[in-house]
Amino acid sequence: MGKTVLKNIEWLGSDNRVHQGDIGIDNDVIVAAGTLDSNWQPDRIIDGTNKLAVPGFINTHTHAAMTLFRSYADDMQLMDWLQNKIWPAEAKLEQDDIYWGTLLAIAEMIKTGTTTFADMYFSMQEIARAVEESGIRAVLARGMAGVTPNAEQALLESETFFKEYHNSCDGRITVMLAPHAPYTCPPPYLKKVVQLAEKLGAEIHTHLSETAGEVEDCLKEYGASPIALMEEVGLLAHGVLAAHCVHVSLQDIEIMRERNVRVAHNPGSNLKLASGIAPVPQMLAAGICVGLGTDGAASNNNLDMLEETRLAALVHKANTGDPLAVPAAFALQMATANGAFALGLGDRTGKLDTGCKADITIFDIQAPHWYPRHDRLSLLTYAASAGDVHTVIVNGRILMENRRLTTLDEERIYAECQARGMRLCR
Amino acid sequence: MGKTVLKNIEWLGSDNRVHQGDIGIDNDVIVAAGTLDSNWQPDRIIDGTNKLAVPGFINTHTHAAMTLFRSYADDMQLMDWLQNKIWPAEAKLEQDDIYWGTLLAIAEMIKTGTTTFADMYFSMQEIARAVEESGIRAVLARGMAGVTPNAEQALLESETFFKEYHNSCDGRITVMLAPHAPYTCPPPYLKKVVQLAEKLGAEIHTHLSETAGEVEDCLKEYGASPIALMEEVGLLAHGVLAAHCVHVSLQDIEIMRERNVRVAHNPGSNLKLASGIAPVPQMLAAGICVGLGTDGAASNNNLDMLEETRLAALVHKANTGDPLAVPAAFALQMATANGAFALGLGDRTGKLDTGCKADITIFDIQAPHWYPRHDRLSLLTYAASAGDVHTVIVNGRILMENRRLTTLDEERIYAECQARGMRLCR
Repeated sequence: MGKTVLKNIEWLGSDNRVHQGDIGIDNDVIVAAGTLDSNWQPDRIIDGTNKLAVPGFINTHTHAAMTLFRSYADDMQLMDWLQNKIWPAEAKLEQDDIYWGTLLAIAEMIKTGTTTFADMYFSMQEIARAVEESGIRAVLARGMAGVTPNAEQALLESETFFKEYHNSCDGRITVMLAPHAPYTCPPPYLKKVVQLAEKLGAEIHTHLSETAGEVEDCLKEYGASPIALMEEVGLLAHGVLAAHCVHVSLQDIEIMRERNVRVAHNPGSNLKLASGIAPVPQMLAAGICVGLGTDGAASNNNLDMLEETRLAALVHKANTGDPLAVPAAFALQMATANGAFALGLGDRTGKLDTGCKADITIFDIQAPHWYPRHDRLSLLTYAASAGDVHTVIVNGRILMENRRLTTLDEERIYAECQARGMRLCR
Repeated sequence: MGKTVLKNIEWLGSDNRVHQGDIGIDNDVIVAAGTLDSNWQPDRIIDGTNKLAVPGFINTHTHAAMTLFRSYADDMQLMDWLQNKIWPAEAKLEQDDIYWGTLLAIAEMIKTGTTTFADMYFSMQEIARAVEESGIRAVLARGMAGVTPNAEQALLESETFFKEYHNSCDGRITVMLAPHAPYTCPPPYLKKVVQLAEKLGAEIHTHLSETAGEVEDCLKEYGASPIALMEEVGLLAHGVLAAHCVHVSLQDIEIMRERNVRVAHNPGSNLKLASGIAPVPQMLAAGICVGLGTDGAASNNNLDMLEETRLAALVHKANTGDPLAVPAAFALQMATANGAFALGLGDRTGKLDTGCKADITIFDIQAPHWYPRHDRLSLLTYAASAGDVHTVIVNGRILMENRRLTTLDEERIYAECQARGMRLCR
């Protein structure tokens, strides 16, 4: 990897301001942002003219291999979609499919400026292989459902996967435990997950309160909301990343605040599946950490984090009637630093400052929608397009340069995924 | 222009199906879509491999020159934004600014696949000059406000502009009359507009029921909703394109249906300004023609019609709780054929069929988010990006080829608009 300089570039700092100067990268770390020591000799210079560098986007919730089902079934009722389309197709998945589907997702994520993603799926070794080969950063979790025949197997696999892969690949892969959701994981099973989390010191990635129906059913069955149920079984004591949280009450939000639950907000998927609009302004007001996610490509249907950032900045304005809700700078923070914190990556990832991890997305801003340049934060949030992403660096390594991927064979991935997608959805 | 063939290409037909074959263009008309006569000799061949041709997008409502204020002021209360930022900056506009700001808008629209736009602004000759030079199609209207000192002047200018420019530029420019809104045009002034419309045989482009406050004020002042007031003064008898219609009642919808009011739905702007979400499914159910628009770049902040298409397909699902609301095919139809109808362009524009106007947008679909290809309509609506637009044809003329504009000097436009934007917003 060596030393790289981004020469005379504009960048978005963690102070929410745009700076201009040089950014020095030594191996996996940003060693300077501003002025470089004249003795510092880079191995490689990237010209920053008409470029804007930002912290790489952090996708806090997806199911990467579901790219294979992208555009297979849309505009359907949730249970019709799951029972008649998605689950039958998923039942046909073989290990290689998951590897190729994940590579397709990673290719898309790199091309759209995402440098870290949190995945919940199965056949995790295949996913880890794709992450390892591609150079991206990932927080992986084996989805576990207590109501399925392989419930115990999933616990064992989660344990083995955690032991083998947590903090592997130069720290690019970390691992969480993923009880799927309250409606697929009854309390006795959740308690086993809690025990495993205690034993391993692992954190949790789960789905909570995605639909009104889920909350209603949970109240009926357990007399508690999904959030309250998770608190009762002891899950929230172990560091929880909760995807969706669309239908949470003020009491739920209070529990979440107390337990430092981090939220993966997926506005695109929540709109498309008609789940609703999460009360993000209320969660933010309570001081809850909210990151952004795309969810799987079958319910989005892309993995474009800039689109999620814009949706997060837009939908809450109309939903609350307040044009000041989720301003541009805050939406970008959700997509970067908040995401890193939500995934347990600490405060040296998701920021573009001296001493931080060199996970950087560089936009080409020589395009009509980037003019005039009154405010680059506004342009990035409200006007930019994924097609503007020009160069992407993860852990100090260039994974895309001038819109060409350096670690992946795109044409091969397209051919494999086209054939596999057709076979699975026949 | 001559004869062009799009060779072995996939395209979206007006039957909402994707076809494959050759598309022949002779001057400004699609002469064949499917199989070409073997005697038909094109002057130029465009390779259709990994391309998807669609009818060019039709932006039914914008204020093009407001690109100059893009990113100048965001995340503010509407009146604060207008009174303290936008209006003072607009007051400094000179004719040349409007020409260059419109060129920037046109460059952006062509690059994102828009082939027709409906504009409401002032200094219309400058706007017409930009349209003429660029080769795009436009429906232009001089905005008129009865409450301003130049109210009578605006009527005269509208008349002159209509007479000089309606059906000019090989039919690429048509003209409408644009009373700005009920809150800026009192009934006596609106009646003058009605008289002028009668005299000229002109149709109307106006803003109606954008915010809850506007409707409330109108009810207080006139005892009628904006829609009902327009009916009372006789405006709706003249063919009305109504932008926004966010806050319309069932009675309003009934009037709109009776009067064949066409709606320019601007989901991005309505979200960003926290105006609300228009009852589009109800309007569609009533058989009202709804097209899509971006509104001006100061309140969006881009002119990307694919983004509006996606928003239209997404927000009404969550807003109604129905994942079948505004399905993909219908959102695309709103962005194309419905838009053409809304602008009074008839049924031979906005469609990609034999005998239609050759206004065509070609997407490059060799990208991760276009795989696997289960359903190209779904991919276009839910996964595609403006950055995928590869080639754009208007009236048979290629305005962008392989992502390069053929009629406009981008670098010059950027430099002019950067300098002018900074001067206006000092």
